[in-house]
Amino acid sequence: MIHRLTIVGVGLIGGSLAAALRQAGYVGEIVGHGRNRANLDRALELGVVDRITLDLAEAVEGADMVVVAVPLGAIRSTLEVIAAAAPVEAVITDVGSAKVMVVEVARSVLGEGLSRFVPGHPVAGGEQSGVAAARAELFVDHKVILTPTAETDTGATTAVREMWSATGATVMEMPAGHHDQVLAATSHLPHMLAYGLVAMLSRLESEAEVFEFAAGGFRDFTRIASSDPVMWRDICLANGSELTTMIDDFIAELKLIQGAVDGGDGTALLDEFAFAKSERDRFMRQWPKP
Amino acid sequence: MIHRLTIVGVGLIGGSLAAALRQAGYVGEIVGHGRNRANLDRALELGVVDRITLDLAEAVEGADMVVVAVPLGAIRSTLEVIAAAAPVEAVITDVGSAKVMVVEVARSVLGEGLSRFVPGHPVAGGEQSGVAAARAELFVDHKVILTPTAETDTGATTAVREMWSATGATVMEMPAGHHDQVLAATSHLPHMLAYGLVAMLSRLESEAEVFEFAAGGFRDFTRIASSDPVMWRDICLANGSELTTMIDDFIAELKLIQGAVDGGDGTALLDEFAFAKSERDRFMRQWPKP
Repeated sequence: MIHRLTIVGVGLIGGSLAAALRQAGYVGEIVGHGRNRANLDRALELGVVDRITLDLAEAVEGADMVVVAVPLGAIRSTLEVIAAAAPVEAVITDVGSAKVMVVEVARSVLGEGLSRFVPGHPVAGGEQSGVAAARAELFVDHKVILTPTAETDTGATTAVREMWSATGATVMEMPAGHHDQVLAATSHLPHMLAYGLVAMLSRLESEAEVFEFAAGGFRDFTRIASSDPVMWRDICLANGSELTTMIDDFIAELKLIQGAVDGGDGTALLDEFAFAKSERDRFMRQWPKP
Repeated sequence: MIHRLTIVGVGLIGGSLAAALRQAGYVGEIVGHGRNRANLDRALELGVVDRITLDLAEAVEGADMVVVAVPLGAIRSTLEVIAAAAPVEAVITDVGSAKVMVVEVARSVLGEGLSRFVPGHPVAGGEQSGVAAARAELFVDHKVILTPTAETDTGATTAVREMWSATGATVMEMPAGHHDQVLAATSHLPHMLAYGLVAMLSRLESEAEVFEFAAGGFRDFTRIASSDPVMWRDICLANGSELTTMIDDFIAELKLIQGAVDGGDGTALLDEFAFAKSERDRFMRQWPKP
């Protein structure tokens, strides 16, 4: 049970967390902070938060749990204010999609307070953003990955774990570096492919027609290209070295396919596609739900 | 109105066309041909066709419309039998995803009969295959592209156009070469990206985990990697030169993104992602339906 929860950044993730904890009866008061007045007003109107303020120091006053749900590029400045203004006993956590960078920032900003900081990442969301898209069910059956450091207080980790469990999520732990590798593969690279494909096709002379004839597969395939550009810029910058390795691997894969196409090597193409299909079908059987 | 329709290859596309024409009351008898007895039996059982045969020459006997819905690699041998066995007045059309190659094959195989052959491509389908996935509504509000040649008889084109219109599809015409360019961009390249991504990730040491943490975006993104490998091998071989150009363009795009990631160029990343998002959002507003 959380007495006073501060959500820093009441967007899709922050807003959904607030709504889920409210629905679970797991929280007393919810204070929402953000830089966009209209969005905060909307959060209040929707009943997602109880109180709003544009002043971050005021927002974290008296909080026992502070959730930082801002783009990664704003993590440092946000943690700086929180370090100075939050109660020393408050547990602080974040929801960023890259964790090594967050740990480094927390280490340099929080000092002694590092022990009360639990790096976290709910693997949920989608191409929508903003509090209007928030919903209490967003995390049900989704995974939340925590990447506590050697210095992280066990009690703080437990508090964050229990908070996420109350939303219906499955909580697990792994080292930050490992998280960043796995997410580069499953999330960051696919977003680059979707953004890249739409950008490339949009520059073709035949763009209008290309979009006109785009079939259902293209629609699904490019859905994630409608994701928030600022958030993704920050993820790329925060997880650059893992991402660039994945892009290299993917280019090598495309060249393998291209070589088979150019050489008319039907056997190689069939083998590759059949391999991919069997792995994807197996994945869908093993993990039928998101 | 078609009196006797022969569907050569009663899979997702052939089966759905039969079901749609039956539902529209646009056809007398439907004869199904295929090489897989069990699949044909299923088609009969489902009421998709009235009569089945493993003998192609027998299947086209007395037909006024013959629809070739086989993988592109089987087009030549199929057209050879049809050329010898179908009534001279029968209209012949196909549903292949690459059209220049089909036109070349038809030109070399059909001789005088070329005038009665109308190359076509319904832009519909999905990752499912087989007659069990067939449904009468598959083509509603979808596009069917016809690519008649200079030799194609206008009456034959009209007959094929009217057949597809009866399924609820929107029928349009364009040159075969142009079709192959547009489809390489909107369909063939995205399938390579999906197959390639799944294949590449499946070879990572952390494969099991990668799949475990794959979020909803990944699921949508890789859906088309569950498509039929034989069909896609044939499309790659049939439309190789357009596809290889698209792969080159896409690798250049990925290198652009990778360069910005490596150089920490947030402005370039934000510009590229914002451009892609705005184009994709515009596309979804302009073409809300598939």
